[in-house]
Amino acid sequence: MKAFVMKEIGQVGFADKPIPRPGPDDAVVRTTSALICTSDSHTVRGGIGPRENLTLGHEAVGVVHDVGSDVKDFRQGDRVLVGAITPDWGSPASQNGYPSQSGGPLGGFKFANSKDGVFAEYFHVNDADANLARIPDGISDESAVYCADMFSTGFMGAEKGDIPIGGTVAVLAQGPVGLMATVGARLRGAGIVIGVESVPRRQSLARAYGADEIVDFTSEDVIERMLDLTQGEGVDTAIEALGADATFQTAVKITKPGGTISNIGYFGEGEFVRIPRVEWGVGMADKTIATGLCPGGRLRMERLLRLLETDRVDPTHMTTHRFPFDEMERAFEVSDKKLEDVIKVLVTF
Amino acid sequence: MKAFVMKEIGQVGFADKPIPRPGPDDAVVRTTSALICTSDSHTVRGGIGPRENLTLGHEAVGVVHDVGSDVKDFRQGDRVLVGAITPDWGSPASQNGYPSQSGGPLGGFKFANSKDGVFAEYFHVNDADANLARIPDGISDESAVYCADMFSTGFMGAEKGDIPIGGTVAVLAQGPVGLMATVGARLRGAGIVIGVESVPRRQSLARAYGADEIVDFTSEDVIERMLDLTQGEGVDTAIEALGADATFQTAVKITKPGGTISNIGYFGEGEFVRIPRVEWGVGMADKTIATGLCPGGRLRMERLLRLLETDRVDPTHMTTHRFPFDEMERAFEVSDKKLEDVIKVLVTF
Amino acid sequence: MKAFVMKEIGQVGFADKPIPRPGPDDAVVRTTSALICTSDSHTVRGGIGPRENLTLGHEAVGVVHDVGSDVKDFRQGDRVLVGAITPDWGSPASQNGYPSQSGGPLGGFKFANSKDGVFAEYFHVNDADANLARIPDGISDESAVYCADMFSTGFMGAEKGDIPIGGTVAVLAQGPVGLMATVGARLRGAGIVIGVESVPRRQSLARAYGADEIVDFTSEDVIERMLDLTQGEGVDTAIEALGADATFQTAVKITKPGGTISNIGYFGEGEFVRIPRVEWGVGMADKTIATGLCPGGRLRMERLLRLLETDRVDPTHMTTHRFPFDEMERAFEVSDKKLEDVIKVLVTF
Amino acid sequence: MKAFVMKEIGQVGFADKPIPRPGPDDAVVRTTSALICTSDSHTVRGGIGPRENLTLGHEAVGVVHDVGSDVKDFRQGDRVLVGAITPDWGSPASQNGYPSQSGGPLGGFKFANSKDGVFAEYFHVNDADANLARIPDGISDESAVYCADMFSTGFMGAEKGDIPIGGTVAVLAQGPVGLMATVGARLRGAGIVIGVESVPRRQSLARAYGADEIVDFTSEDVIERMLDLTQGEGVDTAIEALGADATFQTAVKITKPGGTISNIGYFGEGEFVRIPRVEWGVGMADKTIATGLCPGGRLRMERLLRLLETDRVDPTHMTTHRFPFDEMERAFEVSDKKLEDVIKVLVTF
Repeated sequence: MKAFVMKEIGQVGFADKPIPRPGPDDAVVRTTSALICTSDSHTVRGGIGPRENLTLGHEAVGVVHDVGSDVKDFRQGDRVLVGAITPDWGSPASQNGYPSQSGGPLGGFKFANSKDGVFAEYFHVNDADANLARIPDGISDESAVYCADMFSTGFMGAEKGDIPIGGTVAVLAQGPVGLMATVGARLRGAGIVIGVESVPRRQSLARAYGADEIVDFTSEDVIERMLDLTQGEGVDTAIEALGADATFQTAVKITKPGGTISNIGYFGEGEFVRIPRVEWGVGMADKTIATGLCPGGRLRMERLLRLLETDRVDPTHMTTHRFPFDEMERAFEVSDKKLEDVIKVLVTF
Repeated sequence: MKAFVMKEIGQVGFADKPIPRPGPDDAVVRTTSALICTSDSHTVRGGIGPRENLTLGHEAVGVVHDVGSDVKDFRQGDRVLVGAITPDWGSPASQNGYPSQSGGPLGGFKFANSKDGVFAEYFHVNDADANLARIPDGISDESAVYCADMFSTGFMGAEKGDIPIGGTVAVLAQGPVGLMATVGARLRGAGIVIGVESVPRRQSLARAYGADEIVDFTSEDVIERMLDLTQGEGVDTAIEALGADATFQTAVKITKPGGTISNIGYFGEGEFVRIPRVEWGVGMADKTIATGLCPGGRLRMERLLRLLETDRVDPTHMTTHRFPFDEMERAFEVSDKKLEDVIKVLVTF
Repeated sequence: MKAFVMKEIGQVGFADKPIPRPGPDDAVVRTTSALICTSDSHTVRGGIGPRENLTLGHEAVGVVHDVGSDVKDFRQGDRVLVGAITPDWGSPASQNGYPSQSGGPLGGFKFANSKDGVFAEYFHVNDADANLARIPDGISDESAVYCADMFSTGFMGAEKGDIPIGGTVAVLAQGPVGLMATVGARLRGAGIVIGVESVPRRQSLARAYGADEIVDFTSEDVIERMLDLTQGEGVDTAIEALGADATFQTAVKITKPGGTISNIGYFGEGEFVRIPRVEWGVGMADKTIATGLCPGGRLRMERLLRLLETDRVDPTHMTTHRFPFDEMERAFEVSDKKLEDVIKVLVTF
Repeated sequence: MKAFVMKEIGQVGFADKPIPRPGPDDAVVRTTSALICTSDSHTVRGGIGPRENLTLGHEAVGVVHDVGSDVKDFRQGDRVLVGAITPDWGSPASQNGYPSQSGGPLGGFKFANSKDGVFAEYFHVNDADANLARIPDGISDESAVYCADMFSTGFMGAEKGDIPIGGTVAVLAQGPVGLMATVGARLRGAGIVIGVESVPRRQSLARAYGADEIVDFTSEDVIERMLDLTQGEGVDTAIEALGADATFQTAVKITKPGGTISNIGYFGEGEFVRIPRVEWGVGMADKTIATGLCPGGRLRMERLLRLLETDRVDPTHMTTHRFPFDEMERAFEVSDKKLEDVIKVLVTF
């Protein structure tokens, strides 16, 4: 079968690989739609170390091609979604409530990391009964595929942010994950959601997804504006959706004592992420810093799909580009180099 | 001044009372709008014991008429909202995180209980800095007054229900508080909200406020329908918004193991509220039963007002009747006897 | 092999059964020590319905006899503990944080319920890597076996009770699980632990396990005494460790507004468990009712074993009787009929 | 009256001041015992900015000398404890659950910060009913005074650390607050408590207060040792009790994914507190960073006193030095310069 791989650090391209075969608890899925993520770019640049001919991609939907002998709830032909994170549910980390960390830090992140990803005609899913979810009729592949990572990570930012009903929330950066954190903040009942973003297309999508105010850091003092918008108090919750040291510092500064900095950014550089000491109350201002990694699993995916069934959100406004799998090289380039004001690139098989 | 009082159990009418005077931390508010609550009817029927010439009412907005010498943040002429519950914030119960219980069970509930209520030309507010909230320009009195109890109690039902994003929620009874629990479930990100209600007007308001499905217990088996709508699992959260033993039992039955029964009903009758033993998993099914009493206080009210400022919800669809204070007797009768398909009665001063 | 079974409702005795064989993820354990539980008596009396020749018992330790081909962390000869509850970790209930409810209400409870239990020379353990725990050298079988249910259930009562450091806790009934709830309350930092019990031996064990006060309901008014001991406020947490309607009602009554009733009792009788309406604050006193079923799993068991390694508690004071497996009939009778002031009966193989 | 003051940055000494007078809600307390804290040294060195003739000290017990007209629960002659933090309980931060942050970041910290402290013959307490606690007969002044800050801060480190029963906990630095965090970890049911400390006297006190293991960073690799002691996993909870950037980094490194870094250190220096990026899982390892400021208030103090009543802990082992108030200059020097292996200095009046 055809797969789109990271040949080595900095090098991508097609490769031919055998169709995977399922173990007793596993499934093999024939890919129908996939999304390209900035994490794929991080990986290609060496963010998780060297890899050789590793199939990229972790956001996909498809049709069950084959299941192992012990799989009970899925069978060939089922249209399915799989979370970007596919935990080992029996592991100590899962038993501790942190399945994304099963098998070590970020260990639930298997696709395009510890095994081949989803940018291929077929891909393998461990523990199919626990990690697949059936896509209801009436939900398009294009909508469903956004659940895998964009919904799950973005909404987690809001959930871990412990937003009170009517609370004040800032979402720093309105890329795809930040946009979904904006939706997430609305889903948790935020009283005001303030997006920080400078790119016009992202600003306007942020508004469409529920941001009440947009702060443009290129023309305004973010901290001052946040204090203005919150009667001088700072926000209840600041969601860092970029993964940059300076943005993280801003997040700490704009959060009020007793508030939460909820990080969903991937910090790709530097030895440290730095907390500004004074604004952190010399360590005593009750500003909690929460983090996490995209929750996966069948239950999570079913809940996210339900939000599509009941029309809570339409993620497809984020699809700015569509390519067939044959044009994956160009598709990847557009996403990787952030060409043409890209938000998300959908690849169809 | 004119006040509408409970003369004795079963008897209401106007009385003349002196305008109250504030203690050093208090305020006196000139009433502009108030809402009648079914709790007022409970009280008149003797639900909290005998009272003599007690002014009724606990949902009101108005204009500050006078403040005590130690009040810092409010002054004469401020347009203000006061929560139905006005806690003593320094009490042990408040320090414990349960201000509504300050001074004993339900002790934060002072209006029309331990002191005169708000159905009068003026009313007294303890600890003004902590219990009043300024109403922003652009928010009508009629909208704001819904924050005092309807928003705060209804949304609490959702908050204590621990609803996961995309979760399944049933709201049993779609009276005013149930309708706001429906809104609350949407505000917390429920994936499906199922209202139980038989009255057509309430059914249609429930849909308008975000219920995805309506179950009519007069023509359907509620439990069967709930299982159908939740793939046989039961709901994550059942909000009991009636206060009836049979409804409570249904709530326990339709909640899945690991789910929450969140009670916001006022149970006015009987010696017991009964948990069905088997469906409660013989005491071991991880079905939590949560309760509470309408959160009050300035911060809560400010957060609820913010939801009006950002157009999250329009409560005024619940106002089915409007009367001037002079016609309070008729107004009360309409609410008390549930005449003319009433939802909420607004009284203007 | 020899097994001690429930032949039918009301009938127990030995039976001969084949040694079980493990599936790919499973283990078979050679039993070395087991404890008899009052749940076994409930089962024999028909509490979970009819069963035929079902091996009884769910508290055991042993030595790994055989493992399936996919088991990674255990091998023949390992000395192991298995929790009374052996969840399916990938199930939706587990993903939702309630593994004891996997596969339906109380579905994680498999031993002597949906499959043969541990009162046999060998027993089968599903998902060995997730449900077994290695017993550290230096920990006796007799100590370790108490982790399976007594520690896990009793401590859960304290954990779900949300005890604040220095808080006031009542534990109603000081049977084995109540005694361990007493220990649990101490482990969570209770400021005072009040045991309710009338049997002298249990009273004295309760004191030894950390109860600061004992209330004897046969000679004192429990509610009055609790109010006395808590300056009239009621307790922060009441742990119901009996499973009786009257005791549950007392638990609700003695809990202060904002407190938690944490149930670990098995309610074996009656259609309802009844909440006293007025003392529950007509549904509004913020008295949470929490429940659960003995947490199982490797991580839980490892944490409980650690408490033995660091000498936090010695459970063996509860062993009042010891029998070899050959004398299982007498052993069961002693436990079942509560003869000779029994607390727990240890069976050795 | 005589007061021991910070005359200016770097300068301390006695001053004569008038006995304070209570406002209507306040009390004035005649000091009987006080403790010197390293925060006092931070303050004198300019940690909170310049102050002129500010009375130092925030840990004290005494006897009520005078109360305001609205104080209900205390009167002259009552032996009382006051928390180091005396919040405004009606403030938005208190209503939000963070009373220590009332009136702005760390705003509940008034003694020796925004008003005169307790190192004087008399001191003033705002909102006496909410901030004082009666000391039970049988509890010595010397024991009770440890509740004000040492118990409250140290135990908070354990509470915010979200320690599971049987969990693994590291407490980095065993100064007085670290020692009480060690006690706190035991009070929450930690399965193993590992103290990090190099000073022999502190090491031995740590063992006496319940540390199971001591790691000496001057002779061992802390990270390696922690991994050894936790089967390679890292701890569930790391409590930073020093307030140093390097220690904080270690805390992040030794915490397992899904664990909590609970900070109770006061960070007195540097622009940043730095999170090691990779060990923080590039922002995605579910390692929560929690903080707080010594909880105050009557309820908290009553709960802490209860732990003394029931003999849960004896704090007086930390009193290494005792001075009468007349020798306050020497007393302060011993504490400030950490002379003579000092742990805590008790001052009697």
